[in-house]
Amino acid sequence: MNKVVSVPAVFRKTADTFAAGAKTLAQRYLVSTEVFRQEQEQIFSTQWLLAGHQSQIADAGDYFLVSIPPSSDCGRTKESLIITRDKSGAIHGFYNVCRHRGTRLKEDACGHASVIQCPYHAWTYGLDGRLIGAPHMDEVRGFEKADYSLRAVNLALWEGFIFINLDEDAMPLAEWFAPLNGKFSHWNMSILRPAKRIEYDVRANWKLMFENYSECYHCPGVHPMLAKVSPYDSAENDLSEGPFLGGFMKINKGAGLTMSGKACALPVGGIKREDGEEAEDDGLVFYYSIFPNMLLSLHPEYVMVHQLWPKSPERTLIVCDWFFHPAAFAHKDFKPEDAIEFWDMTNKQDWHVCELSQHGIASRAYEPGPYSSRESIPAAWDRYYLSMMD
Amino acid sequence: MNKVVSVPAVFRKTADTFAAGAKTLAQRYLVSTEVFRQEQEQIFSTQWLLAGHQSQIADAGDYFLVSIPPSSDCGRTKESLIITRDKSGAIHGFYNVCRHRGTRLKEDACGHASVIQCPYHAWTYGLDGRLIGAPHMDEVRGFEKADYSLRAVNLALWEGFIFINLDEDAMPLAEWFAPLNGKFSHWNMSILRPAKRIEYDVRANWKLMFENYSECYHCPGVHPMLAKVSPYDSAENDLSEGPFLGGFMKINKGAGLTMSGKACALPVGGIKREDGEEAEDDGLVFYYSIFPNMLLSLHPEYVMVHQLWPKSPERTLIVCDWFFHPAAFAHKDFKPEDAIEFWDMTNKQDWHVCELSQHGIASRAYEPGPYSSRESIPAAWDRYYLSMMD
Amino acid sequence: MNKVVSVPAVFRKTADTFAAGAKTLAQRYLVSTEVFRQEQEQIFSTQWLLAGHQSQIADAGDYFLVSIPPSSDCGRTKESLIITRDKSGAIHGFYNVCRHRGTRLKEDACGHASVIQCPYHAWTYGLDGRLIGAPHMDEVRGFEKADYSLRAVNLALWEGFIFINLDEDAMPLAEWFAPLNGKFSHWNMSILRPAKRIEYDVRANWKLMFENYSECYHCPGVHPMLAKVSPYDSAENDLSEGPFLGGFMKINKGAGLTMSGKACALPVGGIKREDGEEAEDDGLVFYYSIFPNMLLSLHPEYVMVHQLWPKSPERTLIVCDWFFHPAAFAHKDFKPEDAIEFWDMTNKQDWHVCELSQHGIASRAYEPGPYSSRESIPAAWDRYYLSMMD
Repeated sequence: MNKVVSVPAVFRKTADTFAAGAKTLAQRYLVSTEVFRQEQEQIFSTQWLLAGHQSQIADAGDYFLVSIPPSSDCGRTKESLIITRDKSGAIHGFYNVCRHRGTRLKEDACGHASVIQCPYHAWTYGLDGRLIGAPHMDEVRGFEKADYSLRAVNLALWEGFIFINLDEDAMPLAEWFAPLNGKFSHWNMSILRPAKRIEYDVRANWKLMFENYSECYHCPGVHPMLAKVSPYDSAENDLSEGPFLGGFMKINKGAGLTMSGKACALPVGGIKREDGEEAEDDGLVFYYSIFPNMLLSLHPEYVMVHQLWPKSPERTLIVCDWFFHPAAFAHKDFKPEDAIEFWDMTNKQDWHVCELSQHGIASRAYEPGPYSSRESIPAAWDRYYLSMMD
Repeated sequence: MNKVVSVPAVFRKTADTFAAGAKTLAQRYLVSTEVFRQEQEQIFSTQWLLAGHQSQIADAGDYFLVSIPPSSDCGRTKESLIITRDKSGAIHGFYNVCRHRGTRLKEDACGHASVIQCPYHAWTYGLDGRLIGAPHMDEVRGFEKADYSLRAVNLALWEGFIFINLDEDAMPLAEWFAPLNGKFSHWNMSILRPAKRIEYDVRANWKLMFENYSECYHCPGVHPMLAKVSPYDSAENDLSEGPFLGGFMKINKGAGLTMSGKACALPVGGIKREDGEEAEDDGLVFYYSIFPNMLLSLHPEYVMVHQLWPKSPERTLIVCDWFFHPAAFAHKDFKPEDAIEFWDMTNKQDWHVCELSQHGIASRAYEPGPYSSRESIPAAWDRYYLSMMD
Repeated sequence: MNKVVSVPAVFRKTADTFAAGAKTLAQRYLVSTEVFRQEQEQIFSTQWLLAGHQSQIADAGDYFLVSIPPSSDCGRTKESLIITRDKSGAIHGFYNVCRHRGTRLKEDACGHASVIQCPYHAWTYGLDGRLIGAPHMDEVRGFEKADYSLRAVNLALWEGFIFINLDEDAMPLAEWFAPLNGKFSHWNMSILRPAKRIEYDVRANWKLMFENYSECYHCPGVHPMLAKVSPYDSAENDLSEGPFLGGFMKINKGAGLTMSGKACALPVGGIKREDGEEAEDDGLVFYYSIFPNMLLSLHPEYVMVHQLWPKSPERTLIVCDWFFHPAAFAHKDFKPEDAIEFWDMTNKQDWHVCELSQHGIASRAYEPGPYSSRESIPAAWDRYYLSMMD
């Protein structure tokens, strides 16, 4: 007795925009330091960037740091941000820079504090950024504490995720995400809780990972285990142009994207069918890329999110989080590692072919190659990216 | 009873071109990134480069990779080539770049394969480079497999050695080597077999190793063991101007350039004397530099070959191979390590003084110094190099 | 019965030059490669640089090397100097570069030799730099040994310290130090002997360490142990403008800047009071910065000296030496480690906050912050530095 998977209307397939003749990006976009700088200016300094989830700072006084680009053994971080929750519960983002001598205020990746005190000369700021202590500065004529609050960074929430924008005059986040209104409400993302974070240091341009994520043409060869439970040719796209791209694939009946091949936790929500009934949501997995640094993978029983942070033209930090329903954690059948291990393996398979592509693209012999009909989303991603670089 | 070493006519000493007043290269040639780039373009992208020996791919399906510049922990390789032998026995060279998404096809330094299949989307090429499989591409209007063969690199053989040239319109290799026609046939180099490869990561400009190889003025101080068996002042040059430079030195009677001081294998060939007799060839060792990346050392019982691969103005990968006669391997007195250990020690002594020179040359106090009368070949090598950089 | 600390006239407090409104340096001075190069040219290639102390080469034939910038795992040294003492007792400085092929002559950081012989072709120089041996060069027409002495570097002594200057036409060292004539004679620095050297690889711009050294506003938070024995608000400055800056602080009665809190050696000298009597010199510690690379800390029983060697805009080698009176070494109460351990701890506390400042200053959010009234010397140091960069 075969189960029929019913796809809700908001996920209906869009017109196919595949155009024969679409080709991969020119070499310079993937190796040039000049292009990298342009991206940092025109994209990573103007767009909303995924930085975390509100569950990371559940209590007043909790904080975590965001590094842009991420620190690494071969380079240095230019920006460090402190994301705090104040006593009123409001979430703030500040540059991690004392207003006195420029000293970095916090070093630990995350922690808890009642105030933010500089380790150098003990200037002290509230969780809302106001300067509340500065020894001996009352001796300086004209000095006013009110002029030396921490520099705030533009910050907003979407579905529980924390986004930051280095551009103070950026379009409001709600406006940016308006086209997706309600599309993901089923998954209850704002209440989910993280079970695991894994960071990957990938030796490839960040765009190769977006292209890789956007097609399953590579699945039979690269992901034999994944291909067995989710047929690569079942992919359908419902967002096929613009900054939000992706669609869904079928999961074989009774199967799950886990090492055991079975569901590993309680469902995160319930898909509404067109007739208003809850759909059987264990038959589909949804994959979306959110320009420029988020990959959003929605499974029946978990949500996986990748943050991509370019370090150099040829190196990217990828932070991968797995979120589950709060009620799932206490359940006796909760086996998050079953999904995490599966995707850690699958992630590494992907990063490896991305690294091989990075190497080959640096050759004088490289020229843009032809996308197949199964690569319409990478082609659309490239188009949107190029429109940002004009 | 002293043996008289008889030198064949093809190795007769040429006119001495030493000119008092010749000086070492100016600093910029040895430290400048700009000059390094110019060399990569004007020399390493236009000249025939030693890449290996046909014995490395003895059977159909065997392949090995060539990296230019070689990979290292501090940089990245720009070019990777696959050298294959197809079923007809023909040797090919291809850029290691899939025509689809640019992915590097092969990762292992050498191996065996019946076809070349891309690990990303399974595009498949024959050993002759033709695209023979590309899933779903028949759905793409206008796509023809014949348009997407692997990009070939210019490749040819000389005396069994594989040379490649990144310039598709380069002078044919046979024409380039015409001045040396027959000069080395005695050593049977095309049938020799390798016994050992050692790679050296040298922190010095590649040209310093050519200058170092080209004189034995340094031997008494740097190579006390070598100097004992082969008098530094016995050097005579028979190629003293142009891209091929060098000559020979005497080996003391009964001695060999080995740790034990004795011959370590059967001879590789027999020198024809002027009177048509086989010369006693155990009294001479021949040293030639082949511009721009080969050092060829011809001993009575082995041939040692260095490949030089510049990584940066101050760093060079040196690949050193030792070749012996195929019949020597089965002989009971075959002791290749006796020669290998000797030269590994001697190589390292040379690289060390080259590294010391690299350090000193970077100083503001450096200025070109005077070559002695024993350094006419380094001076000639510099002249030829400078003519290529005009 | 409270001891009154009497301050000699040469250390009388100067007019306070603190100007409300003084701010920290602009970002570019602390992160820019271009500024770093300008500093190397306009400051480190023209000013007198502390390179060591004459006690390091006590005997004829002793030598030590000076590297500029210092070698490190991530870069290379451009200049290496050999500092020797010849048979007449004279101290010389030479570029560590053979006049023949540019080879570095000496590799060991220090040693003893009767001549300086090149390891490559055995050219040989006297301890005074004259070329005294060059094999086969007599065969070269026109070659004169007298033309190939080692290149000397400008070198002079001040209070027993060896200074070098890469500018051959620099102002004489005695003239440079004339404003300090006699000021430090009490400490007998030319006869002191070193007990210990520690090198620090600090990930911060060299100027941050000068600013850090020049104020004790940070002491309560950063150096709790130091703050206990030497009150941070006891600081008085007697050199408050120009290349020599600093002053003194009180040491609590009976206390010492050591781990045990007590004096660890015989005094290095005796302060002359205005009335001609020896002052009780155990009540003060003097801190001076000597532009551009010396920090001079004068304690009752030891002298601590820091050399600062910029490696990059964000990295500095700091060499710290502790000197004691020659008579102290044999004394039963000699415990140099008591002071060394104390300052090693204190140094590391300082380097850490300097590194945090370096990180924060690289942010787009950094802007020069207001100096407090306790930071008049950092402000004066910045002014002098900026005058050198005009």
